[in-house]
Amino acid sequence: MTQLLRPASYVSGHWHTNADGQTLIDAVYGRPVAVISSKGVDFAGALAYGRRQGAAIRRLTFHTRARALRALGTYLMERKEAYYELSMLTGATRRDSWVDIEGGIGTLFSYSSMARRELPDERFWPDGRVERLGREGTFVGRHLLVPRDGVAVQINAFNFPVWGMLEKLAPAFIGGMASLVKPAPQTAYVTERVVRDIIESGLLPEGALQLVTGEPGDLLDHLTEQDMVAFTGSAATAAKLRVHPVVVGRNVPFNTEADSLNASVLGLSVRPEDPEFALYVREVAREMTGKAGQKCTAIRRAIVPAHLVEAVTEGLRRELGKVTMGDPTRDDVRMGALVSVEQRERVRETLRQLQAEARIVVTNETPLLGGDPEKGAFLEPTVLLCESPLTARGPHELEAFGPVATLLPYDSLEDAAELARLGRGSLAGSIITHDRAEATELVMGLSSTHGRLLVLNRDNAKENTGHGSPLPQLNHGGPGRAGGGSELGGLSAVRHHMNRVAVQADPTTLTAITREFVPGADVQEDAVHPFRKSFDQLQVGDSLLTHRRTVTEADIVNFAGLTGDHFYAHVDEIGAKEEGIFGKRVAHGYFLISAAAGQFVSPAPGPVLANYGLEGLRFVEPVGIGDTIRTRLTCKRKIRKELRPGETRPTGVVEWRSEITNQDGVLVATYDILTLVERARDEFDPPADLQA
Amino acid sequence: MTQLLRPASYVSGHWHTNADGQTLIDAVYGRPVAVISSKGVDFAGALAYGRRQGAAIRRLTFHTRARALRALGTYLMERKEAYYELSMLTGATRRDSWVDIEGGIGTLFSYSSMARRELPDERFWPDGRVERLGREGTFVGRHLLVPRDGVAVQINAFNFPVWGMLEKLAPAFIGGMASLVKPAPQTAYVTERVVRDIIESGLLPEGALQLVTGEPGDLLDHLTEQDMVAFTGSAATAAKLRVHPVVVGRNVPFNTEADSLNASVLGLSVRPEDPEFALYVREVAREMTGKAGQKCTAIRRAIVPAHLVEAVTEGLRRELGKVTMGDPTRDDVRMGALVSVEQRERVRETLRQLQAEARIVVTNETPLLGGDPEKGAFLEPTVLLCESPLTARGPHELEAFGPVATLLPYDSLEDAAELARLGRGSLAGSIITHDRAEATELVMGLSSTHGRLLVLNRDNAKENTGHGSPLPQLNHGGPGRAGGGSELGGLSAVRHHMNRVAVQADPTTLTAITREFVPGADVQEDAVHPFRKSFDQLQVGDSLLTHRRTVTEADIVNFAGLTGDHFYAHVDEIGAKEEGIFGKRVAHGYFLISAAAGQFVSPAPGPVLANYGLEGLRFVEPVGIGDTIRTRLTCKRKIRKELRPGETRPTGVVEWRSEITNQDGVLVATYDILTLVERARDEFDPPADLQA
Repeated sequence: MTQLLRPASYVSGHWHTNADGQTLIDAVYGRPVAVISSKGVDFAGALAYGRRQGAAIRRLTFHTRARALRALGTYLMERKEAYYELSMLTGATRRDSWVDIEGGIGTLFSYSSMARRELPDERFWPDGRVERLGREGTFVGRHLLVPRDGVAVQINAFNFPVWGMLEKLAPAFIGGMASLVKPAPQTAYVTERVVRDIIESGLLPEGALQLVTGEPGDLLDHLTEQDMVAFTGSAATAAKLRVHPVVVGRNVPFNTEADSLNASVLGLSVRPEDPEFALYVREVAREMTGKAGQKCTAIRRAIVPAHLVEAVTEGLRRELGKVTMGDPTRDDVRMGALVSVEQRERVRETLRQLQAEARIVVTNETPLLGGDPEKGAFLEPTVLLCESPLTARGPHELEAFGPVATLLPYDSLEDAAELARLGRGSLAGSIITHDRAEATELVMGLSSTHGRLLVLNRDNAKENTGHGSPLPQLNHGGPGRAGGGSELGGLSAVRHHMNRVAVQADPTTLTAITREFVPGADVQEDAVHPFRKSFDQLQVGDSLLTHRRTVTEADIVNFAGLTGDHFYAHVDEIGAKEEGIFGKRVAHGYFLISAAAGQFVSPAPGPVLANYGLEGLRFVEPVGIGDTIRTRLTCKRKIRKELRPGETRPTGVVEWRSEITNQDGVLVATYDILTLVERARDEFDPPADLQA
Repeated sequence: MTQLLRPASYVSGHWHTNADGQTLIDAVYGRPVAVISSKGVDFAGALAYGRRQGAAIRRLTFHTRARALRALGTYLMERKEAYYELSMLTGATRRDSWVDIEGGIGTLFSYSSMARRELPDERFWPDGRVERLGREGTFVGRHLLVPRDGVAVQINAFNFPVWGMLEKLAPAFIGGMASLVKPAPQTAYVTERVVRDIIESGLLPEGALQLVTGEPGDLLDHLTEQDMVAFTGSAATAAKLRVHPVVVGRNVPFNTEADSLNASVLGLSVRPEDPEFALYVREVAREMTGKAGQKCTAIRRAIVPAHLVEAVTEGLRRELGKVTMGDPTRDDVRMGALVSVEQRERVRETLRQLQAEARIVVTNETPLLGGDPEKGAFLEPTVLLCESPLTARGPHELEAFGPVATLLPYDSLEDAAELARLGRGSLAGSIITHDRAEATELVMGLSSTHGRLLVLNRDNAKENTGHGSPLPQLNHGGPGRAGGGSELGGLSAVRHHMNRVAVQADPTTLTAITREFVPGADVQEDAVHPFRKSFDQLQVGDSLLTHRRTVTEADIVNFAGLTGDHFYAHVDEIGAKEEGIFGKRVAHGYFLISAAAGQFVSPAPGPVLANYGLEGLRFVEPVGIGDTIRTRLTCKRKIRKELRPGETRPTGVVEWRSEITNQDGVLVATYDILTLVERARDEFDPPADLQA
C-alpha cells in the first residue's frame, strides 16, 4: 500500500471522513495502513435517521427483503478480490479470509433462502398455532412477530470484519430493522470497503445500513426502547456496555457473544490407531492455527484421556511442525500474523500466566516466510499441558486469544464433562469418538454449558465443517462466559429482531389480521369453484361445501382389495369387534381423504396444478358402514413461490383446510392440503425471455 | 386474626423463622397482621442447595414433572379456602383473590397438560427439525433444549402473591430448574401459606421450591452462570437489580415484567348505540376497579374518539357509580382496599402530578361498607381527562397504581396508535371495535410496543377473558417500559429455563443422542414385523422394507372410480400431456400412500391399534403407469400416552417415518405416520381397579 487508507463512517446518508485519527498498522510488516476517526459524527442523528429510514424496510415483505439480500450477495461476491487484498493486511491467510469474506457473503444467501422458504410473503410473521381460548370457539389467540421500530446497533470484533457484519446484518434486515455497524477499529478498513460496495449497489433501502468507523462516542446515550444492541467481543467490554444507564433504563435488548474457553474432548474409547485419533489431532491443530487462533470458537482446552496424553502431544508436535508461518500473501504460508503486536503481547502475557499451572510441551519455531519478525505480529503455535486440570484455575479462566491450547488429561467421562464445564459457558465444544453411547453421555454432560456441540468421527469426517465454524442454521452463542446470547440458529436470529405480540380476537377478526384462515371464521362461498380461481383471484376464506357420500361396505372391500390394506379393523368383523378399539369395521382413513378429494376436486385442467403435500392429518372419529360424509374445503393461506431457473409457469402455494364431517355434523377428519396454483407473472419474476 | 402471623422462610430443607422483623399491617382495618424477616438466612447455602437438589428434578422426565404439577394443583385446590381467608387481609375481594388463587393453581394444570401434550417423555427437548449440513447426508444437526443446572430466582410483586409464584414455578419446574421464591413483603404471608402446603404435600422433590420471606440480603451475590432471575415489579427496582455486578459479570439471564401504562382504544367506527360502546365502558371500569386497580396490566389510558369523550365519561360515571367499596369479606362490596396506606399515598401523589395535564372528570365517593376509613387503604375510583394527549407527558409516564385512568381523546386511527405508542412499551393493550379493517390497522399500529393485544367485540364478548388477564398460552410481558421480558406464552416460558444447544453429528449418532430417528441413520431389521411389537418392545430405528408393487393403469382407473377423484392429471391423457406439469398421467398421491399401507400393514390384530394421523406428507416425484414402488417404514419416535379416565388399554404414540421409493431408488413420497400402540401397564398408570 503506497497510500494511507482513510476508511470513513457512513451516517445519515453521507460519508464522513476525518483527516486526523488513530493510525492503524498492518499486522505483517508493521507499516501504517489506515487512519480512522469518528470525530464529528452525530450519533443521535444517525439513530434517528436509521429509525426513520427503517420504515422503508418494514414496508417490504419478507420475500422482497430476501431477494434484496440475495442480489446483494451476488454483487459482493463479484467484488470479493478487493476484500481479500485488504484482509491480508490484517494478518489473515487466504483460507482465513475465505471464512470471513465468502462465509460472510454466504450468510446473506442463507438468510435469503430461509426467509423465502419459511416465512410468509408478508410484513409480519404469524408464530405458532391458533390457540382456542374459549369452549365455544368465539375467542382465539395467536402470536405475531412484528419488526421492532428501531435500529439494530451492531458492535463487532476485529477478527471477522466481513462475516461479523454480515451475519448480524442479514437477520436484522430480514426482520425489518435498520443496522448501524460499529466494527472494531483494528480491521475496520476491511469492513468499510464492503460497506462502500453495499451503499453503491443501491440494493438495500437507503439507511438500512450505517457505519461508524472509529469510536462509538455517545451512541448508546441515544438508544430508545425499540432499538437493540448486538455485541461481539470481550466479556469485559460487554459487561461495561450492558450496564449503560440507557440500555438498562429503557430495557434495550442486548445480545452478547463473547470469547470462551472452548473444549474439545477425545473419547475414552478411542485408540491411537483409530481414525478418530488422527481426526482429533488434526482438528486441534487446525483450530489453534486457523486465523492464528484468533477465533472466539477456537479450541483452547484439549481434554484427552490421560493414557493418550503422550500420543496426542506427539501428534500435535508433528501436525504443528507442518505449519509454516509468515506473510499470508505467500502460497507456502499456512499461518499468518495476529492482528497487532499489542495483541501478540497480550497473548504472550497470558501464556506466561498459564505457565503457573501448566507447562509448554509443544512449540513450533520454524523460520518466518516473509513478514517482519519484529514489527509483524507473529507468534508460534504453543501447546501446554496441565497435569491437575480438575483443581487448576488458569486453563479454565485465562484466554490466550492466539495459537495456544492446553492439554487437560482425564480418567473418566464424568471428569471429562466436569473439565469442560469448568469453562463456565462456551460457544462451541467438540467430542471426537465413534462410540455412540460415549458421545451421548458427553453431549448430555456438556449440553447445559454450550451453545454448539460437534460430534466428530469417521462417519462425518469428510463432510463436517469443523469445531470452530458457526453455521447459519445453527445457534451461535452460549451461556455464561460465552455471553449468554444467541445469534444465527436459522430464523431464531430473525426473531430476535422482532417483537412477539399475542393477539386475541374472534376467529373472523383474527383471520383478517393474520391473513390466515382461523377455524370458526366466516367463509366466502360463491358460484365459482375455488379450484377454478388462480392464485391471484383466490382469497383466504374462499370455501366449498361438497355434496355428500354414504360410505358402504363395498367401498371398504374395494379399497382393501385395490390397496392391499387388509387391516382387521377394516375387513375382519370378528377381529374388529373383539380386538379393535372401535368395536366394528370402519373405513380406511386413507379412503376418507381420497373420497374427500373425489368430492372437492374439479377434474378439468385449471389453475390448481397439483396437490403436493399434506399436513396435520388427524382422524378424529371413526366412519363406519352407512355413515355419510361431506367435506368443507377452505383457502387457508397463500404463499407466492419463487420462479426457479428454467421454470416458465409462475405459481404459488395455496394451503387448504379440509374438514370431513359425518351425517351428524361431527368432525371425522381434519387436515391441510398443499397445492401448487398458477399465478400471473409479476414484477418480481425474471423477464420471460430469460426463462425457458 | 387474634394472633400475629410469622411467615417463615424455607431454605436448605428447613423452615426459618425470626421473632423480630418488619410488622405488616392489614389493608382493611390497619391492624398488625404479620411479622416477617429473613435475618440469618444463608443465601449462598440456599442457592447451592437448590442447584444440588435441582438434579432430582432433572432426573425426572417432562411427563413425570407434569404429573407432579397436576397432583400439586389438585392438592392446593382442596386447600384454597385458607388462602382466600388470608388474601382478604391484603384488601382483595373474593373475585380479586379468585384470579390470584384459582388462576394461579390453574397455571399448574395448564403447564402440566401442555408438557404432557407437547413435550416428549424425556429429560431433554429436541427443538425444530433436523438440519442437513452436507450434501451426502453424513453430517446433520439439530437443536436440543436442556435444563440449566441452576436455580431460578423469582422475585415477585405484592399484587398476586399466589399466581405470581405459581406462574413462574410451573414453567421452571417443567424446564427442570429448582425455584427460589422471594415474594414482596406486603403480602408474603399469603405466599408462605401456599408454600407450606406445597412442602407438606411432598409432591415436588425436596429443594424444588425454596422461599425467602423478607429481604433478599446478599442473594444475588451468589448467583452463577447457570442460575437465572425472573423479576416482577417496578421498573426502578428492575433497573437496580439488572446491573448487579454478578448478574452482569456472569451473564445471568434476567427476565423483567414491569408495570406499564396500558392503553385501551375505542374504535373510531363505534357508535354509542353499538354493543362495543357498552363493552368498552364496562371493560375500562372493570380494569380500573379489579384488585383496586393494582394490576400491572390494568387500563391506565382510555383512548377514545374525541366525539365520544362525553358519552364515555357519562358511561364511566354510571358504571363506577355502581362500585361499592369497603371490607372485601362482605358480599355487597365490589372493590376492596389498596395493599397499604403507603401505597394509597403514592397513588394520591401521582394523581396530583397527573392533574398538571389532566383534570378529574369522574370520582366516586360512595360510603364505605366496612373497613376503617383512615387506617384502611381505601381509594375511590377516579377518571381524568387529558385534552391534549399528543403533547402531554404525564398520562404516558406517570403510573398511578390504583383505581385511576385517564381519558385521551383522538381524531384519527394514526393518532390513536401514536397515543398508545407514547407509553413506550406495554404489557397489554385492547382495541374495542367490530370493524375488522379498523381492528387490523390498530393491531398493526400497536404491535411493536405491546406484549399482548385484545380485540374485543360483540362476537367474542361472552367468551373473552378481558384486557388485563394474562393467559398461560399467551405471551405475558412487553418491550420497553414493560420490562422487555416474556413469561407464559405456552412452552416459551419453559424454553426460558433451558439452554438451547446445537448438536452436530452423523445421523446414527444424532439418533442415539436425541432418541428420534434421523433420516440416513442405521436401522435395525429383524424377523419380527414392527407392527407385531408392543410400544415397550419397539426401538427407535426398527425398520421394515416392504415387497414391491408395480403401479398399473388399472390401479389408477380403479382408484379414480372408487374415490370419485377424476382429476385430469390421473385420468385424462390429453389434459395430462398438454396442461399437466408432468406431461403424462400419474397415479393419485393418495393411492400411493394407501398402497404403501397395503405393503407395510400387518393385517391380523396386534399391538398397533390404529393409524390416527399423518404429518409432513410430500409427494416428491410423480409415479407413472409401470413404475414400481416399495416402502421403508422406520420407527421414528415413541411417546408414552396418559391413560385417561375410563380408558383401560394403556397405549403410546409411535411415529413412523415412511419413505416410498421407485424402481430407481428415487424417493417419490415421504411422510410420518402416527399410530396408537399398546403398552404394558406401568407405575405411572392409575391402578386397574380404579378404571373401567
